[in-house]
Amino acid sequence: MRSDSHDNEETRIRRGRRGGDRSTRGELLEAARAAFIENGYEGATVRGIASRAGVDPAMVRHWFGGKEGLFTAAVAIPIEPGKALPLLLDGPDERLAERMLGMFLSVWDEAGGGEFTALIRSLSVRDSAVRMLREFLSTALFGRLLRELGSDEPELRATLCGSQVVGLGMMRYVVRMEPLASADHETVVATIAPSLQRYLTGSLRPDRSRTP
Amino acid sequence: MRSDSHDNEETRIRRGRRGGDRSTRGELLEAARAAFIENGYEGATVRGIASRAGVDPAMVRHWFGGKEGLFTAAVAIPIEPGKALPLLLDGPDERLAERMLGMFLSVWDEAGGGEFTALIRSLSVRDSAVRMLREFLSTALFGRLLRELGSDEPELRATLCGSQVVGLGMMRYVVRMEPLASADHETVVATIAPSLQRYLTGSLRPDRSRTP
Repeated sequence: MRSDSHDNEETRIRRGRRGGDRSTRGELLEAARAAFIENGYEGATVRGIASRAGVDPAMVRHWFGGKEGLFTAAVAIPIEPGKALPLLLDGPDERLAERMLGMFLSVWDEAGGGEFTALIRSLSVRDSAVRMLREFLSTALFGRLLRELGSDEPELRATLCGSQVVGLGMMRYVVRMEPLASADHETVVATIAPSLQRYLTGSLRPDRSRTP
Repeated sequence: MRSDSHDNEETRIRRGRRGGDRSTRGELLEAARAAFIENGYEGATVRGIASRAGVDPAMVRHWFGGKEGLFTAAVAIPIEPGKALPLLLDGPDERLAERMLGMFLSVWDEAGGGEFTALIRSLSVRDSAVRMLREFLSTALFGRLLRELGSDEPELRATLCGSQVVGLGMMRYVVRMEPLASADHETVVATIAPSLQRYLTGSLRPDRSRTP
């Protein structure tokens, strides 16, 4: 079994999103992430987040256009594709699913699944969250990855990958169903990677003979 | 490829939940389902649902204990395990995943994914919805099915099955990501059944040799 040796590297992918700055803007994002995870999209307020960060609420409008932009920047997409893709592509294609699952688990587990849960919960109040998730899955991450791989049916593969990855997040962090909710990364990767790998690079429609 | 020939039978599984009655109680459930799908859990009101069904709101408390009980009865669990299990078990084990996916798709698509979406959206406001989904997946449906099959690691298998089935629902009805959102049942079953089948009856931890 593979160890979680990529964890540190993957954590840096996400941290890199904020460029490691401890600027006012960075503190605002930090406060927003905590507030959205604690209170959900509807419960969190711009005023409360700004106050927590020691920032004038007007700066939220200035930097992010409002609560929705702040949500997008702080919570919704925890993996930056431009930084993740080279890592995903660095290794044998037939173990791509293992690297991808390891990356998602590292990023998600860092916040105890809070960011994933906040995203799912925001789907109920923000159509923009749905659009964002769709674009992330179809274009930014899976779409680019599958184009790099020169895949047949890249759009269908992207949605199938999305179904397995989002479903894993649902079971682990939202429904919190055991033993998957507490399983170590090794177990999750070993059991789920073969399915994800098939969606990424395998034969999508196995031509097996069928008994009537 | 398999046709959707089970559709009628599977539709009856769900309809059977209400016993086909057109009683006041049945009309209340019908009105509640429509209201929760249209307005979500928070947006739907007991008064509005009762009015739509031409029933005194006090009857909601009498029959269902309140809004939450009404939601559970009307929307949350569209497949009744006691009726679904015999159908799932009726056929070769190696095609169990096909039968299961066909059943979920038929029930979900009947309401355009509305019930699944209502359930996901209710997760944000009701811990009881999470508990209900967890119990349905772990105990009522997958748990019983895997015990019938005499599976090793039934709990882990149940959560893995849940991850694929819930993820499919998310992509198809909530994120509405194409081409999976509009794919016909044949395509969905052909592409996803092998993954689900492995979670149900396959080797969970393939002991393949790994290059370092």
